[in-house]
Amino acid sequence: MTRVGIVGYGNLGKGVEAAVKNNEDMELVAVFTRRSPESVTVKTEGVKVYNLKDAVNYKDDIDVMIICGGSATDLPTLTPEIAANFNCIDSFDTHANIPVHFAKVDEVAKAAGKTALISAGWDPGMFSLNRLYANAILNNGKDYTFWGKGVSQGHSDAIRRIDGVVDARQYTCPVEAAVEKVRNGENPELTTREKHTRLCYVVAAEGADKARIEKEIKEMPNYFSDYDTTVNFISQEELDRDHKGLPHGGSVIRTGVTGFDNENKHVIEYSLKLDSNPEFTGAVLVAYARAIARLNKEGVTGCKTVFDIAPAYLINMSAEDMRAHLL
Amino acid sequence: MTRVGIVGYGNLGKGVEAAVKNNEDMELVAVFTRRSPESVTVKTEGVKVYNLKDAVNYKDDIDVMIICGGSATDLPTLTPEIAANFNCIDSFDTHANIPVHFAKVDEVAKAAGKTALISAGWDPGMFSLNRLYANAILNNGKDYTFWGKGVSQGHSDAIRRIDGVVDARQYTCPVEAAVEKVRNGENPELTTREKHTRLCYVVAAEGADKARIEKEIKEMPNYFSDYDTTVNFISQEELDRDHKGLPHGGSVIRTGVTGFDNENKHVIEYSLKLDSNPEFTGAVLVAYARAIARLNKEGVTGCKTVFDIAPAYLINMSAEDMRAHLL
Repeated sequence: MTRVGIVGYGNLGKGVEAAVKNNEDMELVAVFTRRSPESVTVKTEGVKVYNLKDAVNYKDDIDVMIICGGSATDLPTLTPEIAANFNCIDSFDTHANIPVHFAKVDEVAKAAGKTALISAGWDPGMFSLNRLYANAILNNGKDYTFWGKGVSQGHSDAIRRIDGVVDARQYTCPVEAAVEKVRNGENPELTTREKHTRLCYVVAAEGADKARIEKEIKEMPNYFSDYDTTVNFISQEELDRDHKGLPHGGSVIRTGVTGFDNENKHVIEYSLKLDSNPEFTGAVLVAYARAIARLNKEGVTGCKTVFDIAPAYLINMSAEDMRAHLL
Repeated sequence: MTRVGIVGYGNLGKGVEAAVKNNEDMELVAVFTRRSPESVTVKTEGVKVYNLKDAVNYKDDIDVMIICGGSATDLPTLTPEIAANFNCIDSFDTHANIPVHFAKVDEVAKAAGKTALISAGWDPGMFSLNRLYANAILNNGKDYTFWGKGVSQGHSDAIRRIDGVVDARQYTCPVEAAVEKVRNGENPELTTREKHTRLCYVVAAEGADKARIEKEIKEMPNYFSDYDTTVNFISQEELDRDHKGLPHGGSVIRTGVTGFDNENKHVIEYSLKLDSNPEFTGAVLVAYARAIARLNKEGVTGCKTVFDIAPAYLINMSAEDMRAHLL
């Protein structure tokens, strides 16, 4: 059994909890929180909730910590702290800061004899892996990534910060015509606007100026101004009824050529259609947690990414069974 | 530079040759053949052609041998022979015999201090990898593999063996309605007939009984009798003009559920659309040849499969660049 601890009990932490329950070789030992432990009730029977500052007391009871915090403010300090005492894994997704985060976690983990893995999930994570495999095979080619249709938590939050907005849900949608061009091997050059649209469902406060809210959304730099954005005002009841889920997904496509005269075209596509972004991400984290626990037992230490992990480490199956049934 | 030798110079050997040319860190040293070396002209300038029985003389000049033989009769003896003197890789694709082939190659390679990898390509190979990753993440789910539309060499050969047939090309076609059901997460139970159809283009000898040929094709056990098969008679000119290529492809799809009550559905799909099956397979073999040469330098020996190779080994890129640009 791999004994797991979860740090942080939001949507992702709950997704990890469900994934641990669904893997018979994994056992959830404890959840660690910055909130008052008595205020947190976990779904799995018998699992204790502790204050995060006491985590070190449980270092001998846990094989790997799955850190379910935010990339903006939590993980940059939290993952190195945890890596000083535990094998651990996070889903750090601020692409530009990955090199710095990696270096910090690597230093701490190596010094402690622990194994860490950063940036697991689906993007970064499974999408990154598929970019790497496709680049290794079709080295003469072009990458495309499309996201959605799915809920962007960051964009939903940005809308909620606008004056007069009570609640909001933002869907990122791939432009199907662009996806089709890529799939057909047409190798298009696509602007930001040509790849994705943004679809918003907004609950406005009573008497709020909807025209002004819509204008503020559509003109918001970075988040919306580079996209064709549709804003729909709906009631809180409608939002709760029709937009409660956190679906997501997308496609990584690489097109490239082979042959002595680059005469043959190829298309590699990896795509995901997910009812629950946090539960799928949680399932990926649990598979990599298994790998990290195994690698630490083999004496491998320091920080890793999905690129460094041989696929066999991820699955609860013997090498013989893998070769007989999956190869 | 990784110095490569190619064993066998058919369609696959030529595909490997083109892939080596397109990778600047790889160099083709020699082609080995069972035919008379003078009768073989390779495309890459300066590359020597030697008789396979003299291969051992070049063991210090080659970092990895890419073995491009057939799985039925060549590879079961050829790969163990080569592994006694070289790091090597093959595309052995007789799924049922993989465990036996693995054991033989592993024993020889370990004794010789060499590193070997069997069953690389796209199925087995990239499709196997995607089955493993998807099973590790969605452990509660169901796998589907669809092949095509693409040319099956084995089925084309089977038709050519029928009396009165001059030439033939057989396409394996996925049943699109079945693929859509799977993509929609309907989890269908599909018979062989419901998953693929077979489309044949046949050149009959002058005066041959076409009705008899069609009947023999459609009733051929294992190859055609379990499928809805269409037979079109065409001229040799039409076959050469319209069916000269070796396109292929397909999809590996896994659907599964997550959540405390299995309430959320997910679909993972990996798909390939290939203009040239042998050139794409060759490109995969070359990426894994790079990995095998690296692993041998690190002191890893014995037989491996794609499951055992960390993705980072496949690509000609530093770990820093991978993390900065692909993660």
